[in-house]
Amino acid sequence: MNAAQLSALQQRLGHPFQDRDLLMRALTHRSWGSDHNERLEFLGDAVLNLAVSDLLFDQYGNSPEGDLTRVRAHLVRQDMLHRIALSLQLPAVLRLSEGEARGGGAQRPSILADAMEALIGAVYREAGFGAAEALVRRLFGPLVAETATQSWGKDAKTQLQEWLQGRRMNVPEYRIESTRGRAHDQTFVVVCSVPEYALEGRGEGRSRRAAEQEAAREVLDRLTALTE
Amino acid sequence: MNAAQLSALQQRLGHPFQDRDLLMRALTHRSWGSDHNERLEFLGDAVLNLAVSDLLFDQYGNSPEGDLTRVRAHLVRQDMLHRIALSLQLPAVLRLSEGEARGGGAQRPSILADAMEALIGAVYREAGFGAAEALVRRLFGPLVAETATQSWGKDAKTQLQEWLQGRRMNVPEYRIESTRGRAHDQTFVVVCSVPEYALEGRGEGRSRRAAEQEAAREVLDRLTALTE
Repeated sequence: MNAAQLSALQQRLGHPFQDRDLLMRALTHRSWGSDHNERLEFLGDAVLNLAVSDLLFDQYGNSPEGDLTRVRAHLVRQDMLHRIALSLQLPAVLRLSEGEARGGGAQRPSILADAMEALIGAVYREAGFGAAEALVRRLFGPLVAETATQSWGKDAKTQLQEWLQGRRMNVPEYRIESTRGRAHDQTFVVVCSVPEYALEGRGEGRSRRAAEQEAAREVLDRLTALTE
Repeated sequence: MNAAQLSALQQRLGHPFQDRDLLMRALTHRSWGSDHNERLEFLGDAVLNLAVSDLLFDQYGNSPEGDLTRVRAHLVRQDMLHRIALSLQLPAVLRLSEGEARGGGAQRPSILADAMEALIGAVYREAGFGAAEALVRRLFGPLVAETATQSWGKDAKTQLQEWLQGRRMNVPEYRIESTRGRAHDQTFVVVCSVPEYALEGRGEGRSRRAAEQEAAREVLDRLTALTE
């Protein structure tokens, strides 16, 4: 990389770094040396998560928490970070070992997504949450509307069934584990199980159907985490 | 609850709420009514995650990212939030439906942990990240040292093996999936698999052993998420 590329990156980020070492660390893959970006990535991941949560809370403050969680998970996924990293032309400025670079490392989605999170973490370290949040809103704002229309709205039982059928697996089983309260004020606890994964989710609600939805949501979230 | 209890809570939090409705919403379980704390919990969870990440980054900035992630997961677990909620005497101020209250809802760890996150989210909404971070540092600071000594240090392969043996399951299998680079600059990709859970983790590193550790860590994280 050269100075012009670095300066262009800072312009695209809208944040001129005071601490050049911090910027360089965010762009350094661990194959390069010991002063790499993994700890900044740890921090940036949490900054991104909060900034996106806040954005969704503002824009969709009346949506159920489960929908917010689902859309957030979709937005902070590796492929979204990868797209943004490409739009910032990160491949040109990454520092990788020769071997990693020759193997195409600068184009690998995971390396680019990690560097993207590390850059967000670096802005947070240098300029605080307000600056990092403004950056995330600039970068992710346009994706929110797009994502919302794709993943909003489908109920969890339907999604879980589609997920399993897409993998030629049996439909999940639902059973009522317990009920509490009097007839007009009952709470149901339902267990949803997917034997192929030795996986269970528990949900509770004021109706059996609401409890089933919540149990299905929990199983779906775990399956998604497992297979991401 | 009465006014004295609410005022005592705000004193223990170190944050006097300007917006009393926001405080009440944070203390309201969804069994009470539609203006409940689930969306604030969604936000508070992300605030907590970042504030704890920042605390660990400051105190253990030289530790590998995997250790930071593991200790963070341990700190933001339900039982930690539950302990803190009890220390703030939240059971006395929660708003629950009659049925939920009679069933002991105000003592349930999940309800208390959720309200705790919602309170953190409410402070964030009212006073910004700085105020919420200060609150998290006051509440969680004392737990960090305690946690660090418990979960720091054991390597991932050992932990995974112990986890599986504790459940009478077979030891995991490791295999080299690929290698890249020349002899003096090689990168190994290793797959760790646990057939009982149809689960695989992938790790890469400059040595076979380092790649195995990373693959074991990924499997361990997923198993932990599955069984929490």
